[in-house]
Amino acid sequence: MIHRIGKYTLEFDDIGITGFGSVAGKKESEGPLSKNFDKIIFDSYAGQKTYEQAESVFQQEALLFALKRADKKAEDIDMIFAGDLLNQCISSSYGLKDFNIPYCGLYGACSTMAEGLILSGISLSSGASRACACVTSSHFCTAERQYRFPLDYGGQRTPTSQWTVTGSGSCVLEKSNKGLRISRALIGRIVDYNVSDLNNMGGAMAPAAADTILKFFEDTKTSPEDYDLILTGDLGEVGSKCLYDLMESEGINLKGRHNDCGKMIYNRKTQDVHSGGSGCGCCASVLCSTILPEMLCGKYKNILFTATGALMSSVSAQQGESIPAIAHLVNIENI
Amino acid sequence: MIHRIGKYTLEFDDIGITGFGSVAGKKESEGPLSKNFDKIIFDSYAGQKTYEQAESVFQQEALLFALKRADKKAEDIDMIFAGDLLNQCISSSYGLKDFNIPYCGLYGACSTMAEGLILSGISLSSGASRACACVTSSHFCTAERQYRFPLDYGGQRTPTSQWTVTGSGSCVLEKSNKGLRISRALIGRIVDYNVSDLNNMGGAMAPAAADTILKFFEDTKTSPEDYDLILTGDLGEVGSKCLYDLMESEGINLKGRHNDCGKMIYNRKTQDVHSGGSGCGCCASVLCSTILPEMLCGKYKNILFTATGALMSSVSAQQGESIPAIAHLVNIENI
Repeated sequence: MIHRIGKYTLEFDDIGITGFGSVAGKKESEGPLSKNFDKIIFDSYAGQKTYEQAESVFQQEALLFALKRADKKAEDIDMIFAGDLLNQCISSSYGLKDFNIPYCGLYGACSTMAEGLILSGISLSSGASRACACVTSSHFCTAERQYRFPLDYGGQRTPTSQWTVTGSGSCVLEKSNKGLRISRALIGRIVDYNVSDLNNMGGAMAPAAADTILKFFEDTKTSPEDYDLILTGDLGEVGSKCLYDLMESEGINLKGRHNDCGKMIYNRKTQDVHSGGSGCGCCASVLCSTILPEMLCGKYKNILFTATGALMSSVSAQQGESIPAIAHLVNIENI
Repeated sequence: MIHRIGKYTLEFDDIGITGFGSVAGKKESEGPLSKNFDKIIFDSYAGQKTYEQAESVFQQEALLFALKRADKKAEDIDMIFAGDLLNQCISSSYGLKDFNIPYCGLYGACSTMAEGLILSGISLSSGASRACACVTSSHFCTAERQYRFPLDYGGQRTPTSQWTVTGSGSCVLEKSNKGLRISRALIGRIVDYNVSDLNNMGGAMAPAAADTILKFFEDTKTSPEDYDLILTGDLGEVGSKCLYDLMESEGINLKGRHNDCGKMIYNRKTQDVHSGGSGCGCCASVLCSTILPEMLCGKYKNILFTATGALMSSVSAQQGESIPAIAHLVNIENI
């Protein structure tokens, strides 16, 4: 069963992350996390005819690694939670259809990994499932042409812009009282500070991250010092600074404990990614390639994983709307 | 807690639908369910600047009616599950942001209402929430121009095509052991029979409905005669016939107990809707305007609500992909 703490926080009993997998593309293989991914797919098409089909392959591969680590087959999974950035989440639906797993489609933009982890924990806690999986992905070539410019156009990018990660991450969750455990979580609310610059997603999402992290600290009566790492995804360099400012105005200094998946995945000095990485696959692949293994090795015992999502579309942007954002938080411990 | 029956079916304890609301547009007000909707919005723009903003208003209004019937305020709701057909589900994110409710975005296409009901039931069962809401919508003007043709083009529609419903439905769910109750549910798997005709969604989705209903009958050892109504949404006339054929080939005759929300919402003889209605708002508004009130009046005691969704996008269609589909089933009883 789940216990509610304070106004928003959920406390889980015995929800374990028993498997995880990550796959990334060529550019990500040239970054600092290169050696951590389970697999690098160097071909942007992943041997398929379209970039969209390629993104589906990334999801399939990440899920297969997660299943393998959990020593599970697809038929052992009672529910899968999946989503991505593409219109109607086609990377997930086409990518996962052959697994034949009862499927819950999500749309949380880049917060999808955290949303999937939390809903998996809720499902396991309720008895609805004995094993769940979650998976998400992004692909530079599918996202950029959908959200911004045709790939061939080669438009100049602003300093605040982020580079969509080509990658995927997946977890398998089960009832378990040892190893990696989801101990607490907070489902975010939609926050809109009226940012409307499509080239500054980090700035648009930082208020949602601040709102979620602050509410979690309030509910749990904890502070940054209680955690080994406060990870956000994917605010990038610009959004992370906005987050520090917003938290400081509430008297909380995050700097010493904070890192952001969008800042970690690329070498921002040499890889021309401006503010950093973004996309559902960014925080998912960083979590599943780097953070969870580092937790198993003892580098971190208790972390907050806060995935942020921008909930606009290119239509809403063209209509002059602001960018509403959301952040879901997962407290992961290694027991 | 939830008990699993057979391979896929979930059995709930004490999950009640304590509020519901429905809003529909002008064309729907000219159909046979006209008097059942809580509100008709005659203006396609709903007083807004864009059709997309109008669709958000439909969601807001439906949710407000559901909250009112449940005697709840927005701040009493611990989680809301919402999604729609638009790219990045913007009707939901823009429509619900001011309610400040912890938000789980879904993408299940026209199966979203059933997905939301099931995840609400799971969340309540786990203790993660004490009250949940779910809401979904569709709008003829937002969906047609996104999926098919510009509205002004006036292309001729095929006999198998369906008319996207302008409408929304919403439910509030709580732990409750009287009144309308979600007793059992089945989360569907993605089914793809290689239908690729965008003008025959009913045909593409019927195999998913058949798969889900058959698995539910197998798990629960029940048959159509055990239910007062087996409702699908939104197969329309063409898809319903496909469903009958698929079920008959398994030795099951659905005809006497079956109806489809897409067949119910319009007068197909006079309203030029061809195979019937479709869109997330179709089965959501039919359920919340007509079926749930009829259950409360004693017309039905025990129904199966099976919402179907087509998981393609216009990009996947242009790339020549087939249409994968999904159907989630909710067994609703009036105790």
